[in-house]
Formats: sequence, C-alpha cells, structure tokens
Amino acid sequence: MRTLRRGIVPLAAMVLWSASAFAADLPSWSEGPAKAAIVDFVESVTTDGDARFVPPEDRIAVFDNDGTLWSEQPVYFQFIFALEKAQKLAAADPAWVSTPALKAAAAGDAKGVLAGGEEALLEVVTATHSGMTVPAFTAEVADWLATAKHPTTGRLYTEMVFQPMLELLDYLRAKDFDVYIVSGGGVDFMRAFAEDTYGIPPENVIGSLGNARFEMVDGVPQVMKDPGIAFIDDKGGKPVGIARHIGRRPIFVGGNSDGDLAMAQWSTAGDGPRFALFVHHTDAEREFAYDRESHIGKLDKALDEAAANGWTVVDMAKDWKAVWPE
Amino acid sequence: MRTLRRGIVPLAAMVLWSASAFAADLPSWSEGPAKAAIVDFVESVTTDGDARFVPPEDRIAVFDNDGTLWSEQPVYFQFIFALEKAQKLAAADPAWVSTPALKAAAAGDAKGVLAGGEEALLEVVTATHSGMTVPAFTAEVADWLATAKHPTTGRLYTEMVFQPMLELLDYLRAKDFDVYIVSGGGVDFMRAFAEDTYGIPPENVIGSLGNARFEMVDGVPQVMKDPGIAFIDDKGGKPVGIARHIGRRPIFVGGNSDGDLAMAQWSTAGDGPRFALFVHHTDAEREFAYDRESHIGKLDKALDEAAANGWTVVDMAKDWKAVWPE
Repeated sequence: MRTLRRGIVPLAAMVLWSASAFAADLPSWSEGPAKAAIVDFVESVTTDGDARFVPPEDRIAVFDNDGTLWSEQPVYFQFIFALEKAQKLAAADPAWVSTPALKAAAAGDAKGVLAGGEEALLEVVTATHSGMTVPAFTAEVADWLATAKHPTTGRLYTEMVFQPMLELLDYLRAKDFDVYIVSGGGVDFMRAFAEDTYGIPPENVIGSLGNARFEMVDGVPQVMKDPGIAFIDDKGGKPVGIARHIGRRPIFVGGNSDGDLAMAQWSTAGDGPRFALFVHHTDAEREFAYDRESHIGKLDKALDEAAANGWTVVDMAKDWKAVWPE
Repeated sequence: MRTLRRGIVPLAAMVLWSASAFAADLPSWSEGPAKAAIVDFVESVTTDGDARFVPPEDRIAVFDNDGTLWSEQPVYFQFIFALEKAQKLAAADPAWVSTPALKAAAAGDAKGVLAGGEEALLEVVTATHSGMTVPAFTAEVADWLATAKHPTTGRLYTEMVFQPMLELLDYLRAKDFDVYIVSGGGVDFMRAFAEDTYGIPPENVIGSLGNARFEMVDGVPQVMKDPGIAFIDDKGGKPVGIARHIGRRPIFVGGNSDGDLAMAQWSTAGDGPRFALFVHHTDAEREFAYDRESHIGKLDKALDEAAANGWTVVDMAKDWKAVWPE
C-alpha cells in the first residue's frame, strides 16, 4: 500500500510535499497540540537529514484496538459477540447451559458473567471460541459483524471505528511505517475485520491466543481452536507479544488504557525518537466519557504517566472533529 | 527489497522478462526436475492472466531453518551454542553444574545431554537461554556466530547456509513473495543472524518461544527471557505457529525433515496452487548424507508423503551445483 502511494505520485509533486501538505491527510483532527505533536514527530523521523531521522525498517507503529481504534463501551465488542453466540447455542441445545457462567451468558447477562471473575469469563470464551477450525471461526465473526448492531448506537460495530485514527494509520503507512494492532482481543476475532476496516493485514495483528492444535480432520489437515487460553496480550503481555512477533521495539505507540501502559513504557524506553499517544474518552455526547473509574478501558496510571513523560493525550472532544465515519 | 528490484528495472526490460531469464537467478541449481518445478510454479502464480495466478498478498512462502536453509549436523547449531555457553558458565562458576544434564553440557557432551531426554535438554536450554533481556541474548548469539567454528568443517556457522536456498529466497522475494522462517529453533536465536544472512527481517521469523516477562529492571522497562518453554514450533506446532503469526496458509513451503511434514500437509491442502519442497541430504562428500535413520533431521514419513503427493524432493548431490557460499 505504501509503495503504491509512492508509486503514483509524480517526482515533481514529491519535491513539493511538505509537513503542511501531509497534515492535510488528517482532516478529522482539529488544529491543536495533539495533531501538531503527531505531525512534528512523523515529519521529523521521516525526513532524510533530520537529526531524528529513523530508517524505514525501524518505523514500527503499534496500536491497541479496543478503545483506541474502535469503541469499547458498554463492554468489549468481542464479549458481546460471545454473549450473542451463547444465546444461539443455548437456544439450539438447552444442555449447553451447564454452568452458572454459561447460564448468565445465555441470558445475555454481561454483568452476571463478569461477576464470576476471570474463571467465568474464560468458560464463556472457551465455550464460544473453540471446537472449530480457525477459518470457520473467522467466517463466523465476519458474518456477525455484517449484521449485528451496537445496543445503544444502532450502528454496525465496524461503523464505530475512529475516523481520526483511520486517517492516522493511513498517514503513517504513507510515511513508510509498518502498522500493527497489539490488542488484548483475540487474534482470530480481529483478523475477521482488521484488513477491510483498518487496512491492517493478518500478519500485522497481534492479540491474545487461544490454545490451538494441528489435526487431520477426515483426512484434511486443519488448525483447530481448542479450549483454554495460551497467551493474554494485555498489560505486561503486550511488550512480550511485540518482542515475540515483531522482534523490534516500536517507535510509535497508541493506546487508551492502563492495559497499554507497559507497551508505552517499553516502546518509549528504546533509543532514539519515540512517540506515545493515549486516546482519552472525554466525549459523552458523541461517544462515551470514562477514564479513572471505568470498568472497561480504565485510564488511570497511564494518564499520570502520560503527563509525567510528555506523552500525547488525545482529548477526544477537543481534538477530533469527527469520531466515527459518516 | 522486492519493491526496489521492481523499481530499478526499466519497463521495456520487464516486458522481455521470461521464465528462462528468471531461471538465471538460480545459478547454483542444476538444470533438472527440481529447478524446473520451482520455476514453473513461481512463474505461473506470478503471471497475471495465468490460470494459476495468485495475488501478491497471498504469496506467502515459509522455510524451515535447520537442514533447509543451513546445515544441522552433527547436531543443531543452537545446541552447540548452548553447550559452548554451558562450558563457559561452568568454568566461571563450578556451582553452576548442579544436575547431571548440566554436567554433561559443561563437558560438551552432546550425547550425554540427549541421553537424558527432553527434560535434560530443557534444563540445558533454560540454563543458557534465560535470565537476560532479549537484546542481550541476541547480542550474545551474534558474538558467538562471529567467531565460533563448526567442529568438522572449520567454517563459521553462517558460512554453512545453502547457496541455492539463498538464491531461491531472493528469487521468491523478487516475485513479490513474503518469505518467512518457520523453525523449531528459538526465535531470538535465529533473529541474531536471519536478517544479515537470509535477508529475512525479525518480524518474518517464527520459531519456538521461551517464557518471557515484562519487568522494570532498575527503572528500565525490559522484556526478560525466563526459564521454561512457551511454545515448540515443530511438527504440528508449525501450522499452529503460522496460523497464529501470519494468519494465512502459505502457498510455498520448504523443509527437510518429518518435523516439516505437518506444515507441508497443511499448506498444500489450501485452495489453489501450492508448492512443497523437501531438501534431501544426499551429499556426504560436500555436506552430509542422512534421512530415514538420522537422529537429527529425520526424513522418513515426509519422504513417502512427498512421493505420494508429487512434492519436489531436492537431491542435494544432483540438484545443487554448490552447497555453501564460496
């Protein structure tokens, strides 16, 4: 994609490109400190001869997904998927409701499941996310995303991605950044829409991992999704996931919650210029407003750390002209 | 790299390119069925309008490392690294030799360690591959590779990569394939040389994983290598590793042992054109000769499967004009 963009711009036009020209690629960002900091950093590290120049192979950018690239209230959308699937499974086979957690899930009772703690959540995830091949699961998620509507906005979930962040991803790719998702969400769940929605190909999606197993199913080699969690890509798991998958420290990191703090700390501790951005959900009118006390996407320690370290905090109400695509 | 190659070739020259012109990119391959099969497949899937055409984003190629891209006798080179490190650690601190497995390792006794089975091997790997940051470990491996010599050839280990395979990797990249390593070797070990030696960047290296942990070390955020194995990227683990990391089935797969069989089965079972290649070590004179009975890189079931499925078996003695770079 980056290549094509470069390829179609005549050489004469390239010479005329400037920081202000690129800033025009962020039309949904208000003129203000957040946009200015982003453009200053990106232009600087991508300008040959600049003291902060970073070669293309080291231009790694990572973004959390829930609350950073799309909304996450009232609960993570993947959890809504699990609850809706639980309701279908229970309707088809009442015996499926074999534990209190599954009973709560089958009733669409998110709070009831969450009240059971991590064990209950794992039970629901396992019962809805395993026992099929990876492509079968991804197809199931894609089907769900094509029609399921958000409980309060009535939008498709993929219509609740953040327009300014889509523009930021495009801007970074146009500047030869390699852009990754690094999310606590399940990797197979995110791959169902990341390429179409964000332009992020499957190999650039890093997430939590369920157990999986190679198996010959009726003579056909398959990778099966098994019960149980192999890796949780949240908090300290995020730097580990990046180190394992990418093998380099990102120079640009975007998040929105304390779950992204370790990733921001580790990325910005590398040598050379580094940039960290936190989306602060301040816009109850257009989206949702929450931070230090939220049950989802709690932004508390990271808000203090951002202030202490000079990281960019995006004030959604002030910094974004639009939230979701029109 | 792919882009640059394309970019520097004038349009007129591109029109004149043909299968035979590309075949010239494989100078160390003898004219014969293996080279012909490779070139036929690659030209076909990369020629717009061909019935077997595959778009660039689906041109995923995966290669095993030990025995496929470089030699693996008398034992895996990573194991030699571990033994040599064990000897140094034991010399510096005799108390380090706390178990029979570590005693064997400290004596450089590969057979003694292997006699202890998987548990002994794990002990040695853990004692030599954990307790430091990832970059510190990678630097250690790079230092070792810069001077350590193979016990019988006297070559640096990175001088025991296969010249014909280097040419194949270049050929595939020139044809817009995305080339990955998928190896039972440790991912941090391989990243110490994969980019310089094979042109394969860190993010395209998939391997076995040790436990790892994010930690603040004296106020500095680090990813530490911990004792224990998190994932073994061998046999059925290879399709799982690919599904997790790449999220697509490769269309071109290269291996040399039964450890690569599941990867070849799974990759070639996908829709559309697929290619599998197994390097058969038939050349005792220039390299090593081994297959069905070997303790390292056993090629038995996969040799039968290759014959049954029409996969390409590379007869090293006949198909390669050169084995290692000059």
